[in-house]
Amino acid sequence: MNRGTSDKQSSDQSTVSVNAPSSAGLSAGQMDLVNQEASAAQETPTSWSASANRIASLPTPQLLRVDQVSDGWIKKYLLTYRLPDGKEFTYESISRKGLEAYRAELESFAHNALHPSRRLVADAVCIVPRTADDRLVLIREFRYPVNSWCIAFPAGLIDPGETVEQAVERELREETGYALRRDVHGQAHVRTLSQPGFSSVGMSEESVQVVYVHVENEPTLGQMTESVEYIQVFTVPVRDVPRFLNENALPIGTRAQLILEAFSNNVKRYGVAH
Amino acid sequence: MNRGTSDKQSSDQSTVSVNAPSSAGLSAGQMDLVNQEASAAQETPTSWSASANRIASLPTPQLLRVDQVSDGWIKKYLLTYRLPDGKEFTYESISRKGLEAYRAELESFAHNALHPSRRLVADAVCIVPRTADDRLVLIREFRYPVNSWCIAFPAGLIDPGETVEQAVERELREETGYALRRDVHGQAHVRTLSQPGFSSVGMSEESVQVVYVHVENEPTLGQMTESVEYIQVFTVPVRDVPRFLNENALPIGTRAQLILEAFSNNVKRYGVAH
Repeated sequence: MNRGTSDKQSSDQSTVSVNAPSSAGLSAGQMDLVNQEASAAQETPTSWSASANRIASLPTPQLLRVDQVSDGWIKKYLLTYRLPDGKEFTYESISRKGLEAYRAELESFAHNALHPSRRLVADAVCIVPRTADDRLVLIREFRYPVNSWCIAFPAGLIDPGETVEQAVERELREETGYALRRDVHGQAHVRTLSQPGFSSVGMSEESVQVVYVHVENEPTLGQMTESVEYIQVFTVPVRDVPRFLNENALPIGTRAQLILEAFSNNVKRYGVAH
Repeated sequence: MNRGTSDKQSSDQSTVSVNAPSSAGLSAGQMDLVNQEASAAQETPTSWSASANRIASLPTPQLLRVDQVSDGWIKKYLLTYRLPDGKEFTYESISRKGLEAYRAELESFAHNALHPSRRLVADAVCIVPRTADDRLVLIREFRYPVNSWCIAFPAGLIDPGETVEQAVERELREETGYALRRDVHGQAHVRTLSQPGFSSVGMSEESVQVVYVHVENEPTLGQMTESVEYIQVFTVPVRDVPRFLNENALPIGTRAQLILEAFSNNVKRYGVAH
């Protein structure tokens, strides 16, 4: 593996900062569309699905081309758009996908937004496992990009050809050794949120499907973690989630935090959990 | 601005795929630590804050160096670690921060995890605004990295020198024109979650502080969006959040999705919202 010979070396110096950032990473100025839309705050649509059609009538940037400027596990791209005022505008993004797959996905996103029947396919699953005796299964994992152990729910990329349910069962086993219960509703019960969500939409198209599952009280399967994965499995009784959030001192992923907040609110306000 | 002359050009070919990915982007193998820790699933700590101290005793990769391989608004890095078994291991990551700031942050993260009194400072805020007449203020924003309009709560980077509260007030105004109410608790009421969360910890150290605020019923301030920001403000009555999540056909950010899910659960189960 090649590596920069000095810390300050940048090996793709043809990539310049195209979005000399102010607070939002965008050049300063005023934009009429938004002000015209101020009255939209009071919209009361008869159907939220109609919003997608309403969006179709708005001036929207058109993707002209996708240029790859860095390869590797994380690939970096320059996306060039034609803005509604006719000017070209380039934005940096990253993806784990290769150029052709990424371009195809970006083109499909434009259509997804306008055609509700076409659904985004998630890149990854985030699994919220709940035991029969009402504990949540979490992990502490050493995460290299933050040089720290970090609290999260089990999660992982969906392999090619896998369904969401297959990825859930595999990742749950690999990371925790827990098996799905099949006695709750006569079969493995996987409740998926109604759509995948983007993890960090200002930088990347990475999308994650959150799923809630019922698992056995103890891990019964062999874990199958990878050689450089450092994972410690632990559980938190649902009734203790408020205390966990108050006392936890380790860094945490946003998804785990917001999912635990929802449990915490129910426990604190109603003495029960959803 | 320079740009690759062909779509397939990669201008930092010295960066190779160091993490030839299987499902988790890591090389295959078995790791003893995890299996040793299987019994930890039954831990019942007297205090969750003690978990950070317990982590300190685990074998943990040590950061050796940080090399920058791509510059721009999104910077790409190679992080080289010494693993507990003595081997070196390199992982790709990205950050909006420059090399020195990023390295300093990574070094502080290692200490944050072990010293609960040292708290992570968030990069950005995500704002959940609720009106006096019980509506949530959301935005539809055209997001270049996904070539689509996307549902989100107002959000933005915290400027240098700003407090979280100042960033909340500024971003709320810039993106929506809404003002914080100061009549709810005698002053502007900003409820922050107990810690920031990482947006996508497998790739980046980007962290976001989620805050819940009370706002006026209508936007009273001038919006101040930037020239290439396409934002449409809208509101959803809290009682309609379950229907919104069912009917929404636009892509959505994970934070907005999980925050709305929490409201939805309360509405569906208790007829009220927290």
